[in-house]
Amino acid sequence: MKTKNLSVNELFTLFDRDYETHLSDFFHFLRFKSISTEKEFKSEINACAQWLSGYLEESGLSVQVWETKGHPIVFAETAHDPAKKTVLIYNHYDVQPVDPLDLWDSPPFEPELRDGEVYARGAVDNKGQCYYSIASIRTMIKEQGSLPVNLKFVIEGEEEMGSESFPEILERKKEELQADYLLIVDLAMRAADKPAVTLGLRGIATIRLEVHGSKGDLHSGFHGGVVLNPNQALISIISQLHDENGRVNIPGFYDDIEELSDEEHRLFDFEFDKVAFEETYGTPAVGNEKQYTPIEAGTIRPTLEINGIAGGYAGDGFKTVIPAKAWSNLSFRLVPNQNPEKILELACKHINSLCPKGVTLHLDAHAGAGVPFRLTPNSHLAQSAAKAFTEVCGTPCRFILEGGSVPITTSLAQSSGAEVVMLGYALATDNCHAPNEHFGMDRLRKGFATIPRILEYLQ
Amino acid sequence: MKTKNLSVNELFTLFDRDYETHLSDFFHFLRFKSISTEKEFKSEINACAQWLSGYLEESGLSVQVWETKGHPIVFAETAHDPAKKTVLIYNHYDVQPVDPLDLWDSPPFEPELRDGEVYARGAVDNKGQCYYSIASIRTMIKEQGSLPVNLKFVIEGEEEMGSESFPEILERKKEELQADYLLIVDLAMRAADKPAVTLGLRGIATIRLEVHGSKGDLHSGFHGGVVLNPNQALISIISQLHDENGRVNIPGFYDDIEELSDEEHRLFDFEFDKVAFEETYGTPAVGNEKQYTPIEAGTIRPTLEINGIAGGYAGDGFKTVIPAKAWSNLSFRLVPNQNPEKILELACKHINSLCPKGVTLHLDAHAGAGVPFRLTPNSHLAQSAAKAFTEVCGTPCRFILEGGSVPITTSLAQSSGAEVVMLGYALATDNCHAPNEHFGMDRLRKGFATIPRILEYLQ
Repeated sequence: MKTKNLSVNELFTLFDRDYETHLSDFFHFLRFKSISTEKEFKSEINACAQWLSGYLEESGLSVQVWETKGHPIVFAETAHDPAKKTVLIYNHYDVQPVDPLDLWDSPPFEPELRDGEVYARGAVDNKGQCYYSIASIRTMIKEQGSLPVNLKFVIEGEEEMGSESFPEILERKKEELQADYLLIVDLAMRAADKPAVTLGLRGIATIRLEVHGSKGDLHSGFHGGVVLNPNQALISIISQLHDENGRVNIPGFYDDIEELSDEEHRLFDFEFDKVAFEETYGTPAVGNEKQYTPIEAGTIRPTLEINGIAGGYAGDGFKTVIPAKAWSNLSFRLVPNQNPEKILELACKHINSLCPKGVTLHLDAHAGAGVPFRLTPNSHLAQSAAKAFTEVCGTPCRFILEGGSVPITTSLAQSSGAEVVMLGYALATDNCHAPNEHFGMDRLRKGFATIPRILEYLQ
Repeated sequence: MKTKNLSVNELFTLFDRDYETHLSDFFHFLRFKSISTEKEFKSEINACAQWLSGYLEESGLSVQVWETKGHPIVFAETAHDPAKKTVLIYNHYDVQPVDPLDLWDSPPFEPELRDGEVYARGAVDNKGQCYYSIASIRTMIKEQGSLPVNLKFVIEGEEEMGSESFPEILERKKEELQADYLLIVDLAMRAADKPAVTLGLRGIATIRLEVHGSKGDLHSGFHGGVVLNPNQALISIISQLHDENGRVNIPGFYDDIEELSDEEHRLFDFEFDKVAFEETYGTPAVGNEKQYTPIEAGTIRPTLEINGIAGGYAGDGFKTVIPAKAWSNLSFRLVPNQNPEKILELACKHINSLCPKGVTLHLDAHAGAGVPFRLTPNSHLAQSAAKAFTEVCGTPCRFILEGGSVPITTSLAQSSGAEVVMLGYALATDNCHAPNEHFGMDRLRKGFATIPRILEYLQ
């Protein structure tokens, strides 16, 4: 039986009808202090998962709470109809810590609505986006009796601590997670009037590099000029890993990259406002390889970044030491067809060849869980999501690529066997992870209308 | 009236006669917890200065306690005879903190004599060397009624905290400090059987370098490849400050150096045991400019050392940030005729020219109080000190140069108008500044005999 479609306007009307309930339920969700990284909030985490279970059960889904070594995962699904496609939606209910507390204008766990924006920790990341997902499904089931697809939710409680328990769950609950399509509802648009669906991520690989010199720190007066300073050796090595044109200077690093064809390139939005960027971040967009635009360099090109470096005394005043060791954390962002293991092998070999005499080098390399991926804009999933956003926002949805790495995206896609797309209504200005995090009720309303429209097109 | 000389053997006999008194007085001196950097020990500092005053007064000197903003300076002098030369001896009575306490085999302020070595904080630095100085003068006065020179002591209580009050005292007490010769009795020998007089120090100048990028830390996934990472900019700048031959790569840096003539070079001891060095410090001596030996590079050649560098997250695990800023502390050691102010000007100009587009650079440069200095081994002072050491130790005294910078040495020499020499019986193995600091009673005895012999030759 085909259920009657709900149009965007009908969905907006339904949202407005229940506005007070939405506000009340959303605020209730936000009040749980579900900070995953701090042990003292364990009972809040559990209470939050419990509340979610109840909400989804009352909505008509059958719910399982999957216990893990860490925090529980809430899984919910509609009754399975083999004739329908299956859609899996990913959200998370855990939030970031709230420090520094004194920079908040209102308490982080006492949500406040000011000028249409809800201020609270988790407002945008990810409780707001989770709330419109579950509320829209609840409303569809209530209004229509059933959904156009089989629907599953997997809502985790450890996203802000690196989804530590996820790999084990992917293995153990593979059967339950099977789906045709996967929606990661935790993403952003480039601007409020520029809805977008994200079709690609970069992968990640890391190297920790330690340079060891003397047994203990030495006095730079007594021994300066006598020994090789590990700081200097480290800097000498790392400074050779980029050339003067911003390219990574590791032999073979770019060899395997799968370039976008001109046709594919045209389907993606590579719009980039240099002036706005510099205004927002206070630094110009000049870090790119010279033959690529900043946004290309940040999405379809791989990078090597020095995330951290330390050695000796760098505080106020002076301690004239030659440190016993110096170290650095490097990370690569990789693009489709670059193999993280191979890249690390090339990098370690090259770094070892750069180590000067007089110090020893210790490398610790890890391929991250996030592998590079890119979906073509021509796929049914990408087109369905884009149509929904275009309808709801009244302006053409773009296809964009993201420079970050979201390990759960690729691992969940792989485990569930689903095609994956990432989407959401977050904005860079929402103070995600920062004081005064907020999310607009207008965007909550749009999200509420978008999810059902996507399901409609995917059926 | 010329007083009768005391020979080395007579001085040893006098020391042995009063051995129990020396042990008791030295231990008493060591028991004061005169840690200058920690406020809670202020009363111990004062008590220690008080004890010193009493000791010197009882010895027949007239004593002044000079109050400062920090800790008092004990000044003592014999009655002035215009026919005699004046010798000023510098020591300090403050000591380093004692952490980590659990690594001490006996409590740091309960001196213990084990196998001829006295274990206590300050045993070598500088109470041991101060004790033999004051005890030998006390004995000479007692035995001979007078000294062959006018003698002054200046014993400070802030050496371990950078001699903060010293510059002001130098200004205020210039008259009192006037002398012909200055002995800094706070130095080391290269080995127990290699007595040495130190005739030179390197000067110091420092630059703190900050590279600023974005307003706040950026995510290296989202913005990697888009902005210039301040870590990378910093490394790029600093890596260009040395060439591949270990030379400082700042135009003009070496221009003004006053080289040692071959003849002068022969008068100094440049012995260096590469194998022993590597064994002691666990790192090879390879940091030098290629055309100089390690010990030359560490004494008569200037250096630029990266004392500290920091930026982003360099701890365990990973935080994939592009830091908003990165910074580094650099210090130069300078040799005679290099002007610290000029070197800083050259360095800052060059560093500024290396700053890549996309970040801003902030430099904070300071010429240290220690300026480079070198006394010729042919001087009367150097020869007198060396003769005394040779006699007492029964083996030829060497002339050495030190790579460090001791600001009080040059400033006190300048203010007192005296020619300066540095000497002492410390050894690198005495655990100076570390747990289980110690000093040998045999060296205390040698020091006790050395000071009067120097005065003898200087008269």
